[in-house]
Amino acid sequence: MKTIKIPAITLSILVLVSGFTEAKAPVGIVIHGGAGTIERSQMSAEQQQQYEATLTDAVNKGYQLLAAGGTSLDAVIAAVTLLEDSPLFNAGKGAVYTWDETHELDAAIMTGQDRKAGAVASVSNVKNPILLARAVMEHSEHVMLTGKGAEQFADTQQLELVENSYFNTEFRYEALKRAKQAKQALPHQAAVLTDPNWKMGTVGAVAIDSQGNLAAATSTGGMTAKRWGRIGDVPVIGAGNFADNSSCAVSGTGHGEYFIRYNVASDICARVKYQGKTAATAAGEVMRELLAVGGTGGVIVVDPKGELSWAFNTPGMYRAKRNAAGTVVEIFGNQNEKTSN
Amino acid sequence: MKTIKIPAITLSILVLVSGFTEAKAPVGIVIHGGAGTIERSQMSAEQQQQYEATLTDAVNKGYQLLAAGGTSLDAVIAAVTLLEDSPLFNAGKGAVYTWDETHELDAAIMTGQDRKAGAVASVSNVKNPILLARAVMEHSEHVMLTGKGAEQFADTQQLELVENSYFNTEFRYEALKRAKQAKQALPHQAAVLTDPNWKMGTVGAVAIDSQGNLAAATSTGGMTAKRWGRIGDVPVIGAGNFADNSSCAVSGTGHGEYFIRYNVASDICARVKYQGKTAATAAGEVMRELLAVGGTGGVIVVDPKGELSWAFNTPGMYRAKRNAAGTVVEIFGNQNEKTSN
Repeated sequence: MKTIKIPAITLSILVLVSGFTEAKAPVGIVIHGGAGTIERSQMSAEQQQQYEATLTDAVNKGYQLLAAGGTSLDAVIAAVTLLEDSPLFNAGKGAVYTWDETHELDAAIMTGQDRKAGAVASVSNVKNPILLARAVMEHSEHVMLTGKGAEQFADTQQLELVENSYFNTEFRYEALKRAKQAKQALPHQAAVLTDPNWKMGTVGAVAIDSQGNLAAATSTGGMTAKRWGRIGDVPVIGAGNFADNSSCAVSGTGHGEYFIRYNVASDICARVKYQGKTAATAAGEVMRELLAVGGTGGVIVVDPKGELSWAFNTPGMYRAKRNAAGTVVEIFGNQNEKTSN
Repeated sequence: MKTIKIPAITLSILVLVSGFTEAKAPVGIVIHGGAGTIERSQMSAEQQQQYEATLTDAVNKGYQLLAAGGTSLDAVIAAVTLLEDSPLFNAGKGAVYTWDETHELDAAIMTGQDRKAGAVASVSNVKNPILLARAVMEHSEHVMLTGKGAEQFADTQQLELVENSYFNTEFRYEALKRAKQAKQALPHQAAVLTDPNWKMGTVGAVAIDSQGNLAAATSTGGMTAKRWGRIGDVPVIGAGNFADNSSCAVSGTGHGEYFIRYNVASDICARVKYQGKTAATAAGEVMRELLAVGGTGGVIVVDPKGELSWAFNTPGMYRAKRNAAGTVVEIFGNQNEKTSN
């Protein structure tokens, strides 16, 4: 009988390589730019191209970091920062107007390996609210800061500050005027929003990195014509943003009040954790149940196996995802997936 | 063969009475006045008597409404309003001081049959923040209002407004001075709270009414020496307050940042709903897991069968419960239940 001798050093290398390969999770990222009444008939080819180009840039920016061994935290921050800087979406530069014709922005970040979280609400002078949310998570003892207090904290964090007028856009101002007209015609008690676009355009990203760590980031200008210091689902951890390595990471967009009442993000992860469902199945269930009670919107999810998916109960959602299998960029509902590499 | 004739009217009454009896759930209420380092050695007999008397008054007030056929919503509001009006607890009158020597109060309410919710944060001039949370739920299209905006909304709601100095108490001012001294001695990055009492004293109530509907209410002055518009778990629906007829109702108290990151209230209810655990079992699990990651506090829970319970990972928690079986009022840990009727 012949024995094969393998030098100890070769064995060590084999073990090392094998161990390293096993530790590498399939990296991936999903992003969204809001869900709502987005229909092909209402969008010019040029507009569609603009949205698709920005979504592609954002998903690529995040993916490149992941592919280079970066963290899911850095990847979702990079993607969301890019979307905040675009006037196309209701976050950062493109934030909607409040009733008082100002802008109040909200954002949240969460990391799945340690369930650390940071959230800011009603911030008016920070160019990239998602960076402030990250600073809250990393450099304060708190999770959620709001208003002037949050801005005082921002002052200590070397973040880029801007005048509130930086967020002015003609397109959003017209939307405010329409919203105010419609609202003033309604009695106070019945002041229910009728135009889903008033609350559309939140941006978000979820990702998994090579260490298998999940992260979720979400940023929004909130609801057009919002009043009274209204806070939506984005900075409410578990409603519009959530990450937990033992279940999934979620970023949501839609009618924030419903996302809060139904704990959308954490309910999806609870079904994964306690019922053994896939994140995709859980997300689909929760969005169907939400619609049944009147809540519209969508979510993007990633699970610890690296499965990337989305679910929405609106006509469309700006969305993109990228992993080793390729890139998908979509806007309208029921699209055949267009995969490109 | 002899037939027994029952007049139609009698049958109708029998059906009516039987139906009515079946619809009656066992009513009950649980309340808390905060969890923390509450030890017998640190409390005089007189102090203990004061706390026990106020807890008894609050639980009785809520229970009497329930016994008379009132709603769980009215019962938890009545109990929490009474606790807010007492200087003993860190809510309403007894609210702690912020870093800037003011008071910023948070509160939340949720009803289990429709998952409606209302929350307010950083409110400085409303005598009973829990009543403002209820007004947000019932009279606005929003779930969460904050700061000056929330106060503008309060102005439209016929609520009792007070000067911020109404919340001044000598006892809390001394606590602020101690907290600031301790914090200023620490480098910013390490500004971790060391005195659990700084964040103690939140009040809350959960109840079930004769219709089987659950409700949860929570109110707090937050964390002593809080800064930067910090918001804790109370107004974050799913963190410190939650109600859902299909699982349970929870009110929490403790280190708010941990309650947010671990979605304490909704995680307890998710375990009931998706794992079939009792609310008491789920609450015990979650509080043990929270302690393992460094989070201290406690919760009170009620499930749709009317089981009343609590769980806390601190030395003590101000707490009381009442149902047909009697009344229990406790402060310290490991107490033998004292039941009285």
